[in-house]
Amino acid sequence: MIILGGTATNGIDEKVSSLLNLKLVKVEHKVFPDGESYVRIPEQITDKDVVVIQSLYPPQDKHLIELFLIVETLSDMKVDKITVVIPYLAYSRQNRRFKEGEAVSIKTILNLLRKSGATSLAVVEPHHYEELEYFDGDTKVIDPIPYISKVVSQRTEKPLVLAPDKGALNRAKRLAEILSTDYTFIEKERDLNTGEVRIKNLPELKVKGRDVVLIDDIISTGGTMVQAINIVKKHGARKVYVTAVHGLFIGDAYSRLIEAGAEEVIITNTIPQDPSKVTIVDVSEAVARTL
Amino acid sequence: MIILGGTATNGIDEKVSSLLNLKLVKVEHKVFPDGESYVRIPEQITDKDVVVIQSLYPPQDKHLIELFLIVETLSDMKVDKITVVIPYLAYSRQNRRFKEGEAVSIKTILNLLRKSGATSLAVVEPHHYEELEYFDGDTKVIDPIPYISKVVSQRTEKPLVLAPDKGALNRAKRLAEILSTDYTFIEKERDLNTGEVRIKNLPELKVKGRDVVLIDDIISTGGTMVQAINIVKKHGARKVYVTAVHGLFIGDAYSRLIEAGAEEVIITNTIPQDPSKVTIVDVSEAVARTL
Repeated sequence: MIILGGTATNGIDEKVSSLLNLKLVKVEHKVFPDGESYVRIPEQITDKDVVVIQSLYPPQDKHLIELFLIVETLSDMKVDKITVVIPYLAYSRQNRRFKEGEAVSIKTILNLLRKSGATSLAVVEPHHYEELEYFDGDTKVIDPIPYISKVVSQRTEKPLVLAPDKGALNRAKRLAEILSTDYTFIEKERDLNTGEVRIKNLPELKVKGRDVVLIDDIISTGGTMVQAINIVKKHGARKVYVTAVHGLFIGDAYSRLIEAGAEEVIITNTIPQDPSKVTIVDVSEAVARTL
Repeated sequence: MIILGGTATNGIDEKVSSLLNLKLVKVEHKVFPDGESYVRIPEQITDKDVVVIQSLYPPQDKHLIELFLIVETLSDMKVDKITVVIPYLAYSRQNRRFKEGEAVSIKTILNLLRKSGATSLAVVEPHHYEELEYFDGDTKVIDPIPYISKVVSQRTEKPLVLAPDKGALNRAKRLAEILSTDYTFIEKERDLNTGEVRIKNLPELKVKGRDVVLIDDIISTGGTMVQAINIVKKHGARKVYVTAVHGLFIGDAYSRLIEAGAEEVIITNTIPQDPSKVTIVDVSEAVARTL
């Protein structure tokens, strides 16, 4: 088995190859003046079992096309087993038709990844685990929460682990179980007339004087997290830690979290982060363990 | 048959549907704050024969992913025949392995387009006609040169039609035949030591006092065209018209052509252009004729 480092790895390829003592080949790449990508596998691959590492952080479409190019080139080299490891899977939130006629983007992408020649897929904390079924081959979920828990446990004891909405409840449960503490979620409802999302019944948040750890899979604009911070602060929480797996931090998302009162933002390296702002949790060991 | 206008059509979808008196459905689309594309076909398509029009000008990868999403969504709607019309086909210059291990990008892209559900493909003047064979279905080439010739014939009589290199010779031949005039090409050689491309034997360019029409498929940085303008000007050409099918005009390409002495730049609308700079030739009728 060898590791093939793609065009967007954030150093995870190097760490995984080092942890597993496997040969690393880095894809050669450039972007032509007109914006087209160029990729080349700089040596003939004779190993029959290749792990491609490629994250799909922005620019997502460019990194995705580059992944298709890499996988088909490997396929042309007659590699039997092509396992694709995707630290951050883009388009994971468009996983069903919310409205008639919509593209189920994640279906198309995983379908084309399979068709380009990938035989196995491993993804760090996808938005919905079931969506990996769109990939017609072996799939694995890589769980980074044990590694997030290591940092959290250094900061606070027996915090309330809180999911900012019901969708993140399972993640809160997993983190709370490792920390041997309790967890719950903030219940919301959508106003059927205005489409606005509001807190339904303020849960009996017994957070007065207690530390709270918020957890979600993705921080995008930060809106959901800011709303959650405001609620727990209003109920008298002590320190509020914001944790998530994938940090997109669109626009001023990070500043908004800090201004709302977040003590610290703890996030993994599936997407490149600014270490002067956030505490970065490395997922490389979690990736290595699944290979 | 209906026309489905994609997310990058430069108005060609509207003109084609009008010329053929066919219903036009426009794909609904937006880009999420994180950069992911959203596409939706806003009505149920019951017609069994749909023509999707989508150009692949920059940002190429975004327009390509959007095309895959559109085609798979149509496929999910049980449309039998999905013809994809691509006015500008990106990645057409990466059509073979120039070096071992390189991605044959156009192969991957046409392969995935077929796998996403497209049954037929029509492309305006691809870089190499043979590369369409990578698409495992019906293919057609759309020839815009008769429409370019209409503009050229209004400007000059019996010009020398000149290909700036051998690769464009067939295009020069086709234009010259319509104009009932002569044509040739500028022969170049690559220095095997430095890799530099130089003019081999200056052809007997009898252009003194004569108008010259340069023709190529793509103007990218404009370097090839500028070199050709310099040569014919040195040999005493009168007016030099620069024509091409696809105008990428990277950076200051347009200004460089004018500064080198181009009288006028004549280009089609497969890529959006600035009408205050170039003379735009509409390819819609050429597209309509092939459907």
